[in-house]
Amino acid sequence: MVNPGSSQPVSAERRLQDLGIVLPNAPHPLGAYVEAVQTGSLLFLSGMLPVKDGKLQYVGRLGKELDESAGRDALRTATLNALSAAKAHVGSLDRVTRVVSVKVYMATHGDFYNQPIVADAASELLRDVFGEGKMSVRSVLGVTALPLGAPVMLEVTFEINN
Amino acid sequence: MVNPGSSQPVSAERRLQDLGIVLPNAPHPLGAYVEAVQTGSLLFLSGMLPVKDGKLQYVGRLGKELDESAGRDALRTATLNALSAAKAHVGSLDRVTRVVSVKVYMATHGDFYNQPIVADAASELLRDVFGEGKMSVRSVLGVTALPLGAPVMLEVTFEINN
Amino acid sequence: MVNPGSSQPVSAERRLQDLGIVLPNAPHPLGAYVEAVQTGSLLFLSGMLPVKDGKLQYVGRLGKELDESAGRDALRTATLNALSAAKAHVGSLDRVTRVVSVKVYMATHGDFYNQPIVADAASELLRDVFGEGKMSVRSVLGVTALPLGAPVMLEVTFEINN
Repeated sequence: MVNPGSSQPVSAERRLQDLGIVLPNAPHPLGAYVEAVQTGSLLFLSGMLPVKDGKLQYVGRLGKELDESAGRDALRTATLNALSAAKAHVGSLDRVTRVVSVKVYMATHGDFYNQPIVADAASELLRDVFGEGKMSVRSVLGVTALPLGAPVMLEVTFEINN
Repeated sequence: MVNPGSSQPVSAERRLQDLGIVLPNAPHPLGAYVEAVQTGSLLFLSGMLPVKDGKLQYVGRLGKELDESAGRDALRTATLNALSAAKAHVGSLDRVTRVVSVKVYMATHGDFYNQPIVADAASELLRDVFGEGKMSVRSVLGVTALPLGAPVMLEVTFEINN
Repeated sequence: MVNPGSSQPVSAERRLQDLGIVLPNAPHPLGAYVEAVQTGSLLFLSGMLPVKDGKLQYVGRLGKELDESAGRDALRTATLNALSAAKAHVGSLDRVTRVVSVKVYMATHGDFYNQPIVADAASELLRDVFGEGKMSVRSVLGVTALPLGAPVMLEVTFEINN
């Protein structure tokens, strides 16, 4: 949507603005770890939860207490936290040269198999911010429980321009 | 089995032929992601499912609807998909200098603890193709549910010769 | 605790001694894989189980057969195995320049959400050995089952000084 027909790389920061997205404050660790570690050109992030204004936006499992739509909303929040944690670490999201990998963990109960639809809430937002050419690999899986009773957790690895 | 007593590196493509393996078509993503991303010398793959001819070869959980033998067969299919996705991305499997890591996720129910035996269906195939000297680290875990109801999912990271 | 007020990097091997920790023998793979793979400056480890003297120290799930305290003890054992596997591969833990990432998998049943407290048994030990400045990112998740019925599994990636 930005720079159509141009060979200029699209600015992720500019796209965020165009999308009307204001990033939340970077999340805080729940223990003896940090939210981001860079090694070489790879930026690893901790598992991001759907925390909003300091508390979980949703609690429960998909397919039991929560439906697909709540799952997508929760995952979008976790994705914004990931973007915020990355920006806090590297200064500007324009330094992201690739979204390398995305893992989406969902607390699920019983026969909940619409995981790809929920996971796309993260993948679509990352694509909208960084562009189609920087899309990641992805794994999605259902788990029994996530920290604090969260319904989803997101793990992202970025490639950074040093 | 190839080049016994020789110091020549063994060709993975040649081994595939010797094993009588014809790789399937590369799998298609189920959402806004891609099947392979290379960053530096690392090639990350998406979680591979036991999809054959466009549909899941098995549906169900190990220890409930499916047994160990079905799990191994499903995981072998997922491994062939991983090899196909890697080859589609880098051109030739001879460019793989190391299988770095393997993660095997299994949808399990109840007391199913023979995970290492099932997981070896992937590890043994990768060893047969790339050789003992390129064996990976591995993690294996049981989960509640995988996309589309798949019994297994495989995540592989390769080191590539640039 | 070592070299207070000094700009000298702290020795992890020295800290281990100060903590009175004697590492166990390096663990053995349960199949066709290896315990450690280095690629570039990254050292990947296999999922480490709470194996002590050749057998699982605990069997069961957190929130059912085992409580938080057993979970922490089991995870500490798995962490010592990770340190041992890393040392066996690179010779000295002083070559670790960063703990890049930690993943803690817990076999959980029902409403067990104190995962961060259990996971800190690994994170705190790694912080005590390598120092606050080398703390990792972290993901924690509850799963249905782990190999051999283990309650916890730990995955660590280190950055190594070449």
